[in-house]
Amino acid sequence: MEVVPMCPMKGGSGDTSYAKNSVLQREVINRMKPVIEEAITNLCNTIRPTTLAIADLGCSSGPNTLYLVSQIIQVVERISEHESTAYQVFLNDLPTNDFNTIFKSLPSFQQQMKKLMGAGPCLVNGVPGSFYGRLFPKNSVHFVHSSASIHWLSQVPYGLESNKGNICMASSSPTSVYKAYYHQFQKDFNSFLKCRSEELVAGGRMALTFMGRTSDDPCKHESSYILELLALALKQLVSERLIAEEKVQSFNFPQYSPSPTEVKLEVEREGSFGIDRLELTEIDWNNASKKESDQEEEDDDAVENSGYSMAKCMRAGIEPFLVGHFGEEIMDKLFSRYTEIVTARMSKEKTAFVFLILSLTKKE
Amino acid sequence: MEVVPMCPMKGGSGDTSYAKNSVLQREVINRMKPVIEEAITNLCNTIRPTTLAIADLGCSSGPNTLYLVSQIIQVVERISEHESTAYQVFLNDLPTNDFNTIFKSLPSFQQQMKKLMGAGPCLVNGVPGSFYGRLFPKNSVHFVHSSASIHWLSQVPYGLESNKGNICMASSSPTSVYKAYYHQFQKDFNSFLKCRSEELVAGGRMALTFMGRTSDDPCKHESSYILELLALALKQLVSERLIAEEKVQSFNFPQYSPSPTEVKLEVEREGSFGIDRLELTEIDWNNASKKESDQEEEDDDAVENSGYSMAKCMRAGIEPFLVGHFGEEIMDKLFSRYTEIVTARMSKEKTAFVFLILSLTKKE
Repeated sequence: MEVVPMCPMKGGSGDTSYAKNSVLQREVINRMKPVIEEAITNLCNTIRPTTLAIADLGCSSGPNTLYLVSQIIQVVERISEHESTAYQVFLNDLPTNDFNTIFKSLPSFQQQMKKLMGAGPCLVNGVPGSFYGRLFPKNSVHFVHSSASIHWLSQVPYGLESNKGNICMASSSPTSVYKAYYHQFQKDFNSFLKCRSEELVAGGRMALTFMGRTSDDPCKHESSYILELLALALKQLVSERLIAEEKVQSFNFPQYSPSPTEVKLEVEREGSFGIDRLELTEIDWNNASKKESDQEEEDDDAVENSGYSMAKCMRAGIEPFLVGHFGEEIMDKLFSRYTEIVTARMSKEKTAFVFLILSLTKKE
Repeated sequence: MEVVPMCPMKGGSGDTSYAKNSVLQREVINRMKPVIEEAITNLCNTIRPTTLAIADLGCSSGPNTLYLVSQIIQVVERISEHESTAYQVFLNDLPTNDFNTIFKSLPSFQQQMKKLMGAGPCLVNGVPGSFYGRLFPKNSVHFVHSSASIHWLSQVPYGLESNKGNICMASSSPTSVYKAYYHQFQKDFNSFLKCRSEELVAGGRMALTFMGRTSDDPCKHESSYILELLALALKQLVSERLIAEEKVQSFNFPQYSPSPTEVKLEVEREGSFGIDRLELTEIDWNNASKKESDQEEEDDDAVENSGYSMAKCMRAGIEPFLVGHFGEEIMDKLFSRYTEIVTARMSKEKTAFVFLILSLTKKE
């Protein structure tokens, strides 16, 4: 079982920023290590490039961005032993990502890497752009990693007018809404695979984690449950006349959690990749919201703290989307209601995220 | 004669920022066009890569960063006619450069480029790091450009204690100071050539412009004259007891303007490159400080305006160095004195920068 929480990014370094609420992401990387290690080992056993080109898609900007890179380099150095490898690391995210903060920490990172590595340099590039489009030259990348990013669609699907009362693909969404989301997922995931297939060398590997669902039943979107609770918080603000109802009715998240079957179908349809691993993994909200130092905590405040941390973790990930639609000024109130709702549910139900782990090899 | 003013960068977008005072840099790029065009044409006639890898070293952050890239792409598209080329553009500067601002303007830039280009994508990467070290994998880059950057040394040379009253390699500097600066230049320029020679493909090209001097006489540092006037402004502030004398005595710019002979010697000593062009070019301060719209201005205020613009242009380039040593609070006063001194000199003397244009081909 791998633990893979959903935490995209909110910029800066404030109390609600991604950089301050990404301790979970570290846990994800640690849990993904065996999958990454397996992919890298198989890669290095078949291809021996003098410069290993690694891409992290949706790298965001926080302490984990370079931590992931260091983990990959350590795996390669352990495998390659006496051979000296040079690294070209491509850190990708949208052009609005805070690359400056990553770049400023590079000199000390490169110093650290020198101690781990042979003589080969570790060259780090920033690659601003959408991973649903081309990012790299043809046949130029050996290993692609992406963590908790590709469940974000390239856009809000068209045709969600009937998704009233919901802000995502939810259990009460009508069939037309499911179809609209699914169609957008198919289009985007196909573009993702097509672009990566052009960019990866033959035999190149991808290790991906993203939100998914266990069942092929479109109504069972377990991972959307956390957003369904956000819809409840929005409804509270509507009833308090702090947000207009139409504002909530016209809002939908560009997010889709595919089932393993849906993923398999798209990979096979695109045709460039062989599937090495396609696994489901669940993560309890309690674990997702605990910091490492809290792991032993069992007192009465534990559930309340978890609810607070969970809501804060979500805020770091989704606030940018909400601000664009509802405005900055309502955020504190919204997340205060959200924290109450999340905390109440966590005390009553077993709540969990579902993530997919997908490991692919580009066919020769 | 090419016009190449000195304007490294000050971040942000304020009145004294590089972004607001870089109209001259645009002129440099326009004047360098024939040299770039010649280098690119020769390159494309010998090598026909499917993806052309272009690097701009010391790209800074302003309207000219992507303008230069668009100029290069236009040349390639004109030459290659019916063939479709993909571009991988590497924008390099120190990790403290404002890459976020460049990246945010990328989507609209890439839209523009699509109209100019064939089907091949234009992929833009940020490469944070010193160009005196390795930036790219071996044999991976086809064309390197650098404008008004490599006269900046990697550090202030050791052994400048006797450079009293000066803040750079100046006409009154003792021989030991010249030797210290020259030694640092040799070391840095050799590193620059060595790294680029590893990174460029055989037959790859470099088109560089940087501050230089006309004479082999180490005392004739024409380009340093603008900094010698800054030393006068600093001395004024010392006499007004606004800056401690020791503070000025311990300050030196990490900048060196080599002669063509010194450059030739280092290129030949390093051995990887053939020299296609090594030219001197002068730019009158009056032209350097005029905006395009001012070109026809001939009224009485012209000299005063030029002095003001020249000082502002210099401020955008060198203020970061000064702030680190003298503190933020003294800058307005310093540049007010400096503007007066520069204006007075421009009304009395013919004052000019000297730049070198260097076009190189990596030997097969």
